Amino acid sequence: MVVPIALTSSAPVTYDITIDTLPGLTFDRKVAIVTNPTVSPLHLDYVLERIDAPHIEVIEVPDGEEYKTLETVEGILERLFEARFDRKSLLIALGGGVIGDMTGFAASVYQRGIGFVQIPTTLLSQVDASVGGKTGVNNAWGKNLIGAFYQPEAVYIDPHFLGTLPKREFAAGVAEVVKMAVMFDAEFFRFLQTHDLRTPEAIREMIRRSVTLKADVVNQDEKEAGIRAVLNYGHTFGHVVENETDYTTYLHGEAVAIGMVMANELAQRLGLLSVEEAEAIQDVLAANGLPTTYQVVDVEGFYEHFFLDKKSNRGAITFILPGGRIGTHVVRNDLDPQAVKDALAVFGGGQ
Amino acid sequence: MVVPIALTSSAPVTYDITIDTLPGLTFDRKVAIVTNPTVSPLHLDYVLERIDAPHIEVIEVPDGEEYKTLETVEGILERLFEARFDRKSLLIALGGGVIGDMTGFAASVYQRGIGFVQIPTTLLSQVDASVGGKTGVNNAWGKNLIGAFYQPEAVYIDPHFLGTLPKREFAAGVAEVVKMAVMFDAEFFRFLQTHDLRTPEAIREMIRRSVTLKADVVNQDEKEAGIRAVLNYGHTFGHVVENETDYTTYLHGEAVAIGMVMANELAQRLGLLSVEEAEAIQDVLAANGLPTTYQVVDVEGFYEHFFLDKKSNRGAITFILPGGRIGTHVVRNDLDPQAVKDALAVFGGGQ
Repeated sequence: MVVPIALTSSAPVTYDITIDTLPGLTFDRKVAIVTNPTVSPLHLDYVLERIDAPHIEVIEVPDGEEYKTLETVEGILERLFEARFDRKSLLIALGGGVIGDMTGFAASVYQRGIGFVQIPTTLLSQVDASVGGKTGVNNAWGKNLIGAFYQPEAVYIDPHFLGTLPKREFAAGVAEVVKMAVMFDAEFFRFLQTHDLRTPEAIREMIRRSVTLKADVVNQDEKEAGIRAVLNYGHTFGHVVENETDYTTYLHGEAVAIGMVMANELAQRLGLLSVEEAEAIQDVLAANGLPTTYQVVDVEGFYEHFFLDKKSNRGAITFILPGGRIGTHVVRNDLDPQAVKDALAVFGGGQ
Repeated sequence: MVVPIALTSSAPVTYDITIDTLPGLTFDRKVAIVTNPTVSPLHLDYVLERIDAPHIEVIEVPDGEEYKTLETVEGILERLFEARFDRKSLLIALGGGVIGDMTGFAASVYQRGIGFVQIPTTLLSQVDASVGGKTGVNNAWGKNLIGAFYQPEAVYIDPHFLGTLPKREFAAGVAEVVKMAVMFDAEFFRFLQTHDLRTPEAIREMIRRSVTLKADVVNQDEKEAGIRAVLNYGHTFGHVVENETDYTTYLHGEAVAIGMVMANELAQRLGLLSVEEAEAIQDVLAANGLPTTYQVVDVEGFYEHFFLDKKSNRGAITFILPGGRIGTHVVRNDLDPQAVKDALAVFGGGQ
């Protein structure tokens, strides 16, 4: 006999992303703020002044992508057990993408899932990482290879935090903004070309448009079965760059900038992007202080690295490329490996 | 401004639980069978004969509740990375509840979630653990405190496997069957009282009715926000028994049997169960070789242990009890601690 399971209780997930000064937040349950020693002295008081809860635990984890590990997540969980957090308790991620990814993953597995809220403090996490429910950690095999799709209860994007953000971190966020524009919105790309992106007005506009574009994609495809993969433009190459350099040389956004330039080289060779457009993209990246070159010392080794990437579905590697011009996209998993290697060879590699 | 997120792509989860001889299964993707050295020599060949896939990896993990840890799950993940499993790959849990819980959890976090199939080989996992998508591991703080709600793609319950099941393991499964009957179905309880439960016909009937009852509960309440908590009858006490005895003295089902007897003592004191019914339940448990006594050496210590249990919501402890007679249930989180301690004291404790 067959007993059917149909989970009628699983309602659609909905929540709001608020782009504004952090409002006062009142919770009737235990709250833990997960942050790091870089963010904490700058912004913890600002947040604590705005949060009311019966118990507030502050959990600091070491700062840096190299600490985005299962071990750090276990440390967060241990603190929650010690403080007797229960199924109704709440985690708040206060920091950049690394803090958000680990806090979300910790929330997803603590007692099979508790609530969490994102308060992103970097441009990158405000425009990208805090939206969409991807959580997880890195390991020796690569980035974000262990994790969960787990949506927050709310996201609060307060541009105030960016006042203390180092230039290099700001630029890393711009890389993800450029990604959204190149893939989805030519008019937005022109905005990025023609504005000083450090002004408060430009920052607010970048956040507003990036978050709106990303929310639209995530709403259609939470689990990355289709269009969400387009958000990986620049990431397939970028992840290998990060991995080859042990995650220490480049910030994630910097590696994505390099990855977009690599993807554009491939796109040009396939007739999917004009030389002028590829240069325009590279110019916007460079104008905002992002790296656009990388020394590929071993093309075969670089190519082999793709196979560990989550996007390598059943042995085929998926490339996200502009779809003929800026503001459009294609997803290709049928490319001749030699075409990819030829594009990589331009970046200084020999075979 | 506020950007709303509404995940329109999250369709309701549906899958089938098949109670029958394992059919031939064909997959067009990499498959890993997770099992242990006890189950493997008995049943692996039987399963391999029925599975067709381009690549089949067999992952053995140590047998026993004490190995149901994050470390073991990490070992499973490591094997998947080594074998270059991708997002389309599939895990198959071949074993009892421990294997099912760890395999499901590994599947839930590998590359943010891959598919898994349950092939439960013990009565306990066939009637209970394999149905409903609870996955996870134990840690120093208690049982199943780290995990996820993650549904399988399919569950195949083949009574054939029970032919080699040790008597004690079989009895442990009967405990969960008794639980379902006492909570939901007086007529089913009478069936359990009046039949030799070792016959093939009785086994099939136990599986059919338990799975149907459980599926009905899970379909209404996947995440245990309401009625699903009723399935924890016997477990609130049982988990403490397991924890106090380091998970080595009792099988899970045995601890649940003890826990039900404890819950019934409390229920009697609250007028929720007659002495005769409590004895009838104890008789069915004892007749099937289950323990029904336990030495509570420290009532206060035992009580304190409840607070670590996931069911202890915001400091209040939730007790699941018969609701006045067999076949009904109540959920109570308003009990006087002294009433609970008085019930515990019957089990030999002093204060």
